[in-house]
Amino acid sequence: MSKKSRHRRRQPRPNIQNRMLPPGQLSPALDAAASQAQIIGFGNGQCTEIPLDRYDQIDEIQRSHPYLWINVNGLKDVQLIEELGRRFQLHPLALEDVVNQHQLAKCEDYDQNIFFVSRMLNLEPHWEHEQLSMFIGANYIITLQEIPGDCFDSVRKRLRSGKGKLAQSAPDFLAYSLLDSLIDSYFPFLDRVADFLDSIEDQVAEGSTARTIESIHEVRNQLMVLRRAIRPLRDALGQLMRAPSHLMTEETKLFLRDCYDHAIQLLELLETYRELCADLREYHLSMISFRMNEVMKVLTVIATIFMPLSFIASLYGMNFDTAHPWNMPELKWPWGYPFALFLMVATAVAFLWFFWRRGWIFSDPTPSKREPL
Amino acid sequence: MSKKSRHRRRQPRPNIQNRMLPPGQLSPALDAAASQAQIIGFGNGQCTEIPLDRYDQIDEIQRSHPYLWINVNGLKDVQLIEELGRRFQLHPLALEDVVNQHQLAKCEDYDQNIFFVSRMLNLEPHWEHEQLSMFIGANYIITLQEIPGDCFDSVRKRLRSGKGKLAQSAPDFLAYSLLDSLIDSYFPFLDRVADFLDSIEDQVAEGSTARTIESIHEVRNQLMVLRRAIRPLRDALGQLMRAPSHLMTEETKLFLRDCYDHAIQLLELLETYRELCADLREYHLSMISFRMNEVMKVLTVIATIFMPLSFIASLYGMNFDTAHPWNMPELKWPWGYPFALFLMVATAVAFLWFFWRRGWIFSDPTPSKREPL
Amino acid sequence: MSKKSRHRRRQPRPNIQNRMLPPGQLSPALDAAASQAQIIGFGNGQCTEIPLDRYDQIDEIQRSHPYLWINVNGLKDVQLIEELGRRFQLHPLALEDVVNQHQLAKCEDYDQNIFFVSRMLNLEPHWEHEQLSMFIGANYIITLQEIPGDCFDSVRKRLRSGKGKLAQSAPDFLAYSLLDSLIDSYFPFLDRVADFLDSIEDQVAEGSTARTIESIHEVRNQLMVLRRAIRPLRDALGQLMRAPSHLMTEETKLFLRDCYDHAIQLLELLETYRELCADLREYHLSMISFRMNEVMKVLTVIATIFMPLSFIASLYGMNFDTAHPWNMPELKWPWGYPFALFLMVATAVAFLWFFWRRGWIFSDPTPSKREPL
Amino acid sequence: MSKKSRHRRRQPRPNIQNRMLPPGQLSPALDAAASQAQIIGFGNGQCTEIPLDRYDQIDEIQRSHPYLWINVNGLKDVQLIEELGRRFQLHPLALEDVVNQHQLAKCEDYDQNIFFVSRMLNLEPHWEHEQLSMFIGANYIITLQEIPGDCFDSVRKRLRSGKGKLAQSAPDFLAYSLLDSLIDSYFPFLDRVADFLDSIEDQVAEGSTARTIESIHEVRNQLMVLRRAIRPLRDALGQLMRAPSHLMTEETKLFLRDCYDHAIQLLELLETYRELCADLREYHLSMISFRMNEVMKVLTVIATIFMPLSFIASLYGMNFDTAHPWNMPELKWPWGYPFALFLMVATAVAFLWFFWRRGWIFSDPTPSKREPL
Amino acid sequence: MSKKSRHRRRQPRPNIQNRMLPPGQLSPALDAAASQAQIIGFGNGQCTEIPLDRYDQIDEIQRSHPYLWINVNGLKDVQLIEELGRRFQLHPLALEDVVNQHQLAKCEDYDQNIFFVSRMLNLEPHWEHEQLSMFIGANYIITLQEIPGDCFDSVRKRLRSGKGKLAQSAPDFLAYSLLDSLIDSYFPFLDRVADFLDSIEDQVAEGSTARTIESIHEVRNQLMVLRRAIRPLRDALGQLMRAPSHLMTEETKLFLRDCYDHAIQLLELLETYRELCADLREYHLSMISFRMNEVMKVLTVIATIFMPLSFIASLYGMNFDTAHPWNMPELKWPWGYPFALFLMVATAVAFLWFFWRRGWIFSDPTPSKREPL
Repeated sequence: MSKKSRHRRRQPRPNIQNRMLPPGQLSPALDAAASQAQIIGFGNGQCTEIPLDRYDQIDEIQRSHPYLWINVNGLKDVQLIEELGRRFQLHPLALEDVVNQHQLAKCEDYDQNIFFVSRMLNLEPHWEHEQLSMFIGANYIITLQEIPGDCFDSVRKRLRSGKGKLAQSAPDFLAYSLLDSLIDSYFPFLDRVADFLDSIEDQVAEGSTARTIESIHEVRNQLMVLRRAIRPLRDALGQLMRAPSHLMTEETKLFLRDCYDHAIQLLELLETYRELCADLREYHLSMISFRMNEVMKVLTVIATIFMPLSFIASLYGMNFDTAHPWNMPELKWPWGYPFALFLMVATAVAFLWFFWRRGWIFSDPTPSKREPL
Repeated sequence: MSKKSRHRRRQPRPNIQNRMLPPGQLSPALDAAASQAQIIGFGNGQCTEIPLDRYDQIDEIQRSHPYLWINVNGLKDVQLIEELGRRFQLHPLALEDVVNQHQLAKCEDYDQNIFFVSRMLNLEPHWEHEQLSMFIGANYIITLQEIPGDCFDSVRKRLRSGKGKLAQSAPDFLAYSLLDSLIDSYFPFLDRVADFLDSIEDQVAEGSTARTIESIHEVRNQLMVLRRAIRPLRDALGQLMRAPSHLMTEETKLFLRDCYDHAIQLLELLETYRELCADLREYHLSMISFRMNEVMKVLTVIATIFMPLSFIASLYGMNFDTAHPWNMPELKWPWGYPFALFLMVATAVAFLWFFWRRGWIFSDPTPSKREPL
Repeated sequence: MSKKSRHRRRQPRPNIQNRMLPPGQLSPALDAAASQAQIIGFGNGQCTEIPLDRYDQIDEIQRSHPYLWINVNGLKDVQLIEELGRRFQLHPLALEDVVNQHQLAKCEDYDQNIFFVSRMLNLEPHWEHEQLSMFIGANYIITLQEIPGDCFDSVRKRLRSGKGKLAQSAPDFLAYSLLDSLIDSYFPFLDRVADFLDSIEDQVAEGSTARTIESIHEVRNQLMVLRRAIRPLRDALGQLMRAPSHLMTEETKLFLRDCYDHAIQLLELLETYRELCADLREYHLSMISFRMNEVMKVLTVIATIFMPLSFIASLYGMNFDTAHPWNMPELKWPWGYPFALFLMVATAVAFLWFFWRRGWIFSDPTPSKREPL
Repeated sequence: MSKKSRHRRRQPRPNIQNRMLPPGQLSPALDAAASQAQIIGFGNGQCTEIPLDRYDQIDEIQRSHPYLWINVNGLKDVQLIEELGRRFQLHPLALEDVVNQHQLAKCEDYDQNIFFVSRMLNLEPHWEHEQLSMFIGANYIITLQEIPGDCFDSVRKRLRSGKGKLAQSAPDFLAYSLLDSLIDSYFPFLDRVADFLDSIEDQVAEGSTARTIESIHEVRNQLMVLRRAIRPLRDALGQLMRAPSHLMTEETKLFLRDCYDHAIQLLELLETYRELCADLREYHLSMISFRMNEVMKVLTVIATIFMPLSFIASLYGMNFDTAHPWNMPELKWPWGYPFALFLMVATAVAFLWFFWRRGWIFSDPTPSKREPL
Repeated sequence: MSKKSRHRRRQPRPNIQNRMLPPGQLSPALDAAASQAQIIGFGNGQCTEIPLDRYDQIDEIQRSHPYLWINVNGLKDVQLIEELGRRFQLHPLALEDVVNQHQLAKCEDYDQNIFFVSRMLNLEPHWEHEQLSMFIGANYIITLQEIPGDCFDSVRKRLRSGKGKLAQSAPDFLAYSLLDSLIDSYFPFLDRVADFLDSIEDQVAEGSTARTIESIHEVRNQLMVLRRAIRPLRDALGQLMRAPSHLMTEETKLFLRDCYDHAIQLLELLETYRELCADLREYHLSMISFRMNEVMKVLTVIATIFMPLSFIASLYGMNFDTAHPWNMPELKWPWGYPFALFLMVATAVAFLWFFWRRGWIFSDPTPSKREPL
């Protein structure tokens, strides 16, 4: 039972919860985490960071800083999301996509702002996906995540330091920085996948177990999940690079091109790993077939040699009445036993010769250590 | 016999019934259900719902309501369909497609109206496909289904409530709402497929049966049937988004884009499941090969050990006349039996050592519980 | 010998006969059937049908009827074809394609007329392909077939009846009607394929034979031949829909779109069947592997149990001289035989326990009848 | 050793010889054949054919004939090639491609002339590929081949006859005629491939040998080599059809379209054969699995029946001292032997019944001869 | 342990080192080699070559020579790279790509210069990849490599000789020459791959070992690594051919087209080898299955013949008390032994006949040496 429940619900699934609602009406997911919001005012090298308790804090920060970043962790508080929607003119269909998880990455341009959705990878404490929704306006950026914890700490640190390009730039560069962090956070996971594939390859070469087969299957599935996340992300980045210039400056787009390149490298590496997986599977199947062949040969050689021997031994174990001259006269021969032994040895040698000629035994005892490619 | 008939006719088939008729002539399918029509007048928050008994009811409703929705269940009554064709200027080739089932989804623009065909999924009482044909005019919408029962109940409820965007809008928004319901009704089925795949994966890992293989085959086929339904549906939605604006307003098209996104997600999920299926099949084959290998090893080890032992035992069961000194002197040795036993033990140990060195036995009794990816 | 000849020449082949001739020179195929031509004059609801014996009959019919359909069965009479070429200005390269069989379907536009080639399926008496060549002019249509017998009887009947759209229309609508019949004639064959696949699926599930494997291979090949015929046909239809309007009216093109849709449905169904075939093959392979596994388990269980038993029995069949106290004292024990029997039973039970723990025996005697997807 | 050398160097290889030379410098291949050149003057129905011994012969022929065809067999004489290059303004990079064999087919347009490279198939004495390079100028054509012997004899004959379109036309039509011959020469080879596939199919159905497997592998490789030659050839022909009109008239381009169609048919047939090969391989694997299953069943049935029988026989061959009443009392029963025989028969019948119920024996002795598709 | 470490880290990996740095900040790789720079002044047939110790040497060379080539081996000295960046206006994002290894090949155009990255293959001492970064300016070229040793010696030699096109040309031609060398250096490796595939094919045909399977897997992986390097290189070359003309003259672009053709040939050959690998794998699997079948047949034939024989022998070895007339009367027959022998021979002959009829033995002792394709 517990085993079953451990196995349950691993396949990627559609989000079927909000399908019956009329369009534009928000309803939090059943397992949505409580919402926590934070406002960061930034620009001109200054940076103020406060938790969002009252909505007028937004106005205060907006007055004191040129740019604003509101980050929401947990999507249970639909009212908060709707309030943000009203204040920043976020489109109802976009807000619906924020709440309805399991969206594929996409980038949609709504004149006043750009809506960007992506899957985000958390490696700690255990790796899991969540959805990151981002609204990029002229002087604000709003990010909404399913659960606390993200890969944006290095961005926050650079923002707080008040130095560098980031602290001086408009929200579009912050958006780039966030997306860059998001994409870069996938790379350590791919490194782990490469380690995993190395270890599987070793197992296959040295002797696979049922666990090896499971591992190959598992890594295939993980790569498929990743690909589902990253392929639309690449396309969404491509669309972001074509966003209107009042929201995304030409200079930031040059940086986005770098980001886009990274996404392509990610995808390319993913595809390579998928092919490696398929190759490993074939390699593994070949090895199993080969080993089964070896096993069968051993069985056949042993059986083929000992069956006739046993037969001869059984033959002379028969109890025919040797009083009759035709009944097993060999038993009374002075050399009967040596004769029987000779018969056995001769049979065995004949079969060994037969197998040796077929190359089933004694072939290639020291495999020529030909140098690798 | 009964078994055979149970198995019969599962493959997707062409509709070959009306092929010999001249184009434009309607003829109901042999197994068409009796027609039942219903008129819903709506618009401005009002909603009237009556069964269609006489054709002048159409005029009445048209006079009292700005917009009209006629829904026909069952396609046996060709006259009714032709009458609707005459009244609303529906194109003969389109009407032919309504009656000839098994159409792939498509969207055709005939100036006065848009003709939209799609497959629709009924989950209750058992899941089956039927064809939904829809004509979208400036002030009317006509839907025709093969059998009663559909996924439009939530739409009807919203229409009756007289509130919300739907109750105020023109037929194009009703068309969107219907298509949105139609697409959303596929998601629960995909959820069931995911459950099914989970259960197959468990079976493969824990020990598959012939039923497992059948299940994989079955789910592959179902996914193929679904893909045949949804891939053209996506394209038809794409065409609907390019429909002329007097039939489909720009605002509704924004909603249709959402609908189109859902269709893409459906397809993408389908493809993912298909790949998962293929992976499961490979996983299963690997497991079977691996298990066969294990079985063979057990057989070989047992046979290889006991065959020589049996041979030695048979050897000393021979009845050579021990009066002659060359004939089986071992039998008369005081330690003959212990000697034979020692021979047997030595042989067995030799073979066990051979198998142990090859890693066929005693290898990896406690597989290192390496952490998963 | 006879078997070999039965098997010979099943693969699709190039037509290598006329390769060495200079371009533009006609030479009939070696196995071409004798030519039989028929003229049908039609238009304005009138229809005259005479066999073509003298060339001036063409003029006569042309004078008395607005439109002309000449149908030639059998392509041996090259002179006839050349005469038609001269009279109706058919291009020499097109005439060459008429005579050189095994052309892929194509549509070529030569100002005065359109040249359309396609494969045509005859289901009776046994199904076979032949090539249909068609020239569509402003007031004539010429069709050339390899063998008598075609799928155009329903078209001829409608033409003779003098009623309906066909009898009133120009040759372009006749061309559409012929192509529509041609495409529709493929559907009954696909229905047969679906039956065949159903029956293979039953065989695989219930226990396949060598015949099952052959059937899968056979149906794959047939589908490939069909696809080779229909894929270019679809493209040729697409080109025909772009033909200049003096040969193909806009109205007829609307009907051709329907025809094109049917070709797409055909192709789509073919691809579905091809995938089903591949799935069936995989299903079959899985089943064979699974059954082999079952067979191996039975063998292993039986061998593993009886080999040690036989060994013990052989052991106590040895003839050591029991005068010596160390030689097989068991034989003289009063309870020796029960002891040996107990040893055997214990061994068998131990192995049975071992196999039961591995799930090889007694596992899942009543497979849980889980409900299908 | 000799076996090894026979097997050596079958894979397609890059030409690595001239990689280290600076661009534009010609160096003959190590195994290049000695050069032999021939000049054919033609045009206006006249034709003069002389071997090229002195370069001024070119001028002579040029003075006496409107058009010139120089054919060079063997590429050792780099000086000759350079001289031709100087006289006819052939581009150095093109000349390099002439000498560096293993080029993929391509068509390059150098204002004064068109450079066309292709692989050419020689069927006699054994089939092999060589490279054909062709320069098409306004009033000359130069062809260069690796080895003597080509498929152009029919073209030469038509040229010498002084009749027909070829003898009257400019070099562009000669170029078309040569390419047409080149492509048509592939068809007989494909016919041989079809025969070969037929014979493999027979072997698979009737019982395959190791040779069958090798054959499938071999034909796959040959088809891959062919595809490597023909796919770029098709593209090169496409480019030739877009060549400037002073080198390639519109009329010749119409003929080239026919040639291009043939290349497409070739490719399409190749792809069909490749799929057939893959299908054959799967068919073969299924058959091997099926037959192995049959073999295993026989082994299992025999072993399962005789092992218990042998065990019972061995049991009563034990030598326990029957003086003790518990020791094998059966041996002293008057009906002991019939009892033992009955036990054996009962065991055998039980197992046979078990196997019969599983369908392993006596099942389907006369497979229902169901009619083929 | 040592074995493990030998196996470690073979999969292609992302470069995860610099992901956490803000964009534009350089940080050398942990295992970067110490930097060594060399300046070559060239142009007008002159050539000066000095190691770069002080930065003003760059100015000196620039004064005395029209063009400059700076080559840097080892990327540890970030200061040097930054100094070069300042002097030649190299873009910070480009410099970042120089230091962050594992870039896919790309070509980026930054007005003042072109940035070109590619993987480069070193065959000696053992083959390995490194990254080559190249900046092409109007009068300079800067190349940066990970490790010393490259494939540019022939280019340097031609430069030093002061003769030929290279010594007279601007840096764009030098860039072409370097890229040409880089691409050509892949060909010998492919030749080695072809040798390797030949040898694997021999092994498969003559009897494969575990090493054969490993080899196929290994060569697949190597080809995948190569493809990852060359596919983007081809695209980068395509972009370089579209570079602005003040950096890349039209004449050089003609040479680049040749270079591009070589890259396409490389890729095409790679794909061919990959397919060959897949075919070899299938060939190998077929062979293993076939051989297993042969092994099983031998085992089955032997077991099936000797099991009944042994049973008969055991039967007459039973010790029933022959005093009773029903107990094994055969033992007392005068011809009992010959009768038993006859029984055995008859059984053996019956089984042999059975196997012979099934074609398992004595079939096709001399396989008809049918001629190859």
